[in-house]
Amino acid sequence: MDGIGIIGAGVAGLHLGLLLRRNDIPTTLYSDRTPEQLGSGRLPAAVAHHNTTVTRERALGVEHWSAQDYGYAVHHHYVGGPLQARFTGGLGAPSRAVDYRLYLPRLLQDFTAAGGELRIRSIGPGELDELAARHDLVVAATGRGGLGGLFEPIAEKSPYTSPQRKLCAGLYTGVAPAEPKGVTLSIAPGDGELIEIPMYSFAGHVTALFFEAVPGGAFEALAQADHDADPRGFRTQVLHLLREHHPSVYERVDPATFGLTDPLDLVQGAITPRISADHITLESGRPIVAVGDVHALVDPVVGQGANCASYSAWQLGRTILDDPHFDEHFCDKVAQRRRRRVQATTDWTNLMLAVPPPPHLLELITAMSRDPAVADVFTSNFNYPERQWDILATPQRTRAFLARTS
Amino acid sequence: MDGIGIIGAGVAGLHLGLLLRRNDIPTTLYSDRTPEQLGSGRLPAAVAHHNTTVTRERALGVEHWSAQDYGYAVHHHYVGGPLQARFTGGLGAPSRAVDYRLYLPRLLQDFTAAGGELRIRSIGPGELDELAARHDLVVAATGRGGLGGLFEPIAEKSPYTSPQRKLCAGLYTGVAPAEPKGVTLSIAPGDGELIEIPMYSFAGHVTALFFEAVPGGAFEALAQADHDADPRGFRTQVLHLLREHHPSVYERVDPATFGLTDPLDLVQGAITPRISADHITLESGRPIVAVGDVHALVDPVVGQGANCASYSAWQLGRTILDDPHFDEHFCDKVAQRRRRRVQATTDWTNLMLAVPPPPHLLELITAMSRDPAVADVFTSNFNYPERQWDILATPQRTRAFLARTS
Repeated sequence: MDGIGIIGAGVAGLHLGLLLRRNDIPTTLYSDRTPEQLGSGRLPAAVAHHNTTVTRERALGVEHWSAQDYGYAVHHHYVGGPLQARFTGGLGAPSRAVDYRLYLPRLLQDFTAAGGELRIRSIGPGELDELAARHDLVVAATGRGGLGGLFEPIAEKSPYTSPQRKLCAGLYTGVAPAEPKGVTLSIAPGDGELIEIPMYSFAGHVTALFFEAVPGGAFEALAQADHDADPRGFRTQVLHLLREHHPSVYERVDPATFGLTDPLDLVQGAITPRISADHITLESGRPIVAVGDVHALVDPVVGQGANCASYSAWQLGRTILDDPHFDEHFCDKVAQRRRRRVQATTDWTNLMLAVPPPPHLLELITAMSRDPAVADVFTSNFNYPERQWDILATPQRTRAFLARTS
Repeated sequence: MDGIGIIGAGVAGLHLGLLLRRNDIPTTLYSDRTPEQLGSGRLPAAVAHHNTTVTRERALGVEHWSAQDYGYAVHHHYVGGPLQARFTGGLGAPSRAVDYRLYLPRLLQDFTAAGGELRIRSIGPGELDELAARHDLVVAATGRGGLGGLFEPIAEKSPYTSPQRKLCAGLYTGVAPAEPKGVTLSIAPGDGELIEIPMYSFAGHVTALFFEAVPGGAFEALAQADHDADPRGFRTQVLHLLREHHPSVYERVDPATFGLTDPLDLVQGAITPRISADHITLESGRPIVAVGDVHALVDPVVGQGANCASYSAWQLGRTILDDPHFDEHFCDKVAQRRRRRVQATTDWTNLMLAVPPPPHLLELITAMSRDPAVADVFTSNFNYPERQWDILATPQRTRAFLARTS
């Protein structure tokens, strides 16, 4: 038997593969894309790694873009509509966003340099028996190739059956950094959100603008616009939406130089949030453990997906190192170890998607706008979704938190 | 509202109360016995604290009997019958056993010295509403006064519906310490076990002999004997059983000085192992959280009950300090945090009670008798029941562990 087989070269597969190789576990990573393909093509996502994730990268020896130099330390908030609030919260320790077309191939190189085996091969459901026979354990770190369909959504943990936002993320020039450098979360009540992320990409330090469009709201047209059919009209549309709905971003835009960095630096889509089965069991009795999006798929509105995937990969990896016996008992342990954060990530994200937002979320936002200490707790909790959910799980909890903190 | 109310002055209630007071949380402990009553009367149990528990005592500032001076570092094993094995395993870090009639009153004194409030009062189901109205949270750390009946056993975690052993524990003089000083676990297949514990009591360093009698086996009569009606006959019976079934203990007995240290230094009984509900919710909506025996009751055969109670109290206490909002979310978190160790403690203990023992347990014992490294892992895992259960959960796991370790 040949160690651990990981399907998928996303952040979950790579962090897991690197953790295993740093501990001398034979590991094979199956990717349906070559490093060159991962490093080119359309923008795959616009992802920030919070400091808890950066700390794992440091432990793996792959912190190639230091959070001190490439990162940022705050979230700026703007809330439009009747609430009209503007405030800043500190992350406590810096986050950092790097274009995954730079990030993933570089970590894949680290993985092979550390003795990991890379196989460029598409793996679908029909190949799982072969892989299970070859490896001590097979991990599904992607839903591609039809794997996603094998892991059934768990209904009571998956309240939504359709996308709650339509998404449009692109990399832009012509937006001056916020001061201090940071993410801006701008809420246009009823229409959706804009997440502005200082990101490092092929063109250097650029600005990711991530529109989250409530279906039927003012941003939906952008999420469905065909950029390449009318690049100029698309740019005009973005500028219009920024001016009308996101003034704290628009005030830093230079219309003369504003624009997409490249026609491929744009991604549109939509996801239906869900938590799926932790693992499946093949007819042979061998388990396939899910990690990352294939296990827990969250809307990007609070930027938790990649961080949760890395965390989940880490818990799986630690369990492989502690207890290398890959049976139901092992799968239960993995599920228990990651459960609290994964569930809290999902619950918190789903709450942020509710339209209209629940009153206790509005109370928290109002309190943040008045008290920097409250804003700092909320912001630093982007590193610890389970702590965020402790605050937001019920209206009583939010009020008790505010009574303690304000 | 007046902080935390804890019902019960056993190890769970005291460790929880001390942790809370060390963090300045107002805490009231309800005991149906005065410190003087806790410090006198019949031997309540014969309990060893493993080093993980001792470490918590040190953190609480209540390690009055240092494990270096009062403790021991090994378990001596003897297995009779066809297996005929004798071997010693190292604990890694010392355990320690002190008579609870010394231990509990001393820690109660520490609790009140730390500003904890002690109320001598029996609390039954009828008083819970009153306590819930007075305190932010009420913890049931005893099943006395009828509280035990409120927490329903969970059937799928409670495989036994009757006692698997009848118990007879006493403190004795006339047994020379084993070399090196340690617990002796002596198994008489089909009849039961003897656990010999070096214990510190009123008479100084004495020997606890804890008979675990399989119903219908050779030790059952002792567990039901009336010592006070015929002290001499009782002593003769103990000596006879030691000589016939527990030679590795009997060889250190001096029949001339052998005997109970006091007629009250003897306890007989039997328990039905079970895991019960983590908490109940009063009609008012307020939860009562269970900790210790009232939550998880284990047979003493591998000496885990008090250690598990202390661990569980610690997890509850940490959660109170981290997230002082006492709702269903809080109760879920407590349940999740303690679940793995509590469940493993129960599963491992229940496996050790099986008659006949499952083949993979016998394989492990045989391997321990041949390889000190295996015996050391098993023995040090008395500190970490979840690791023990990782080894014993299935025959395949035991064999894989032995293949890795031997």
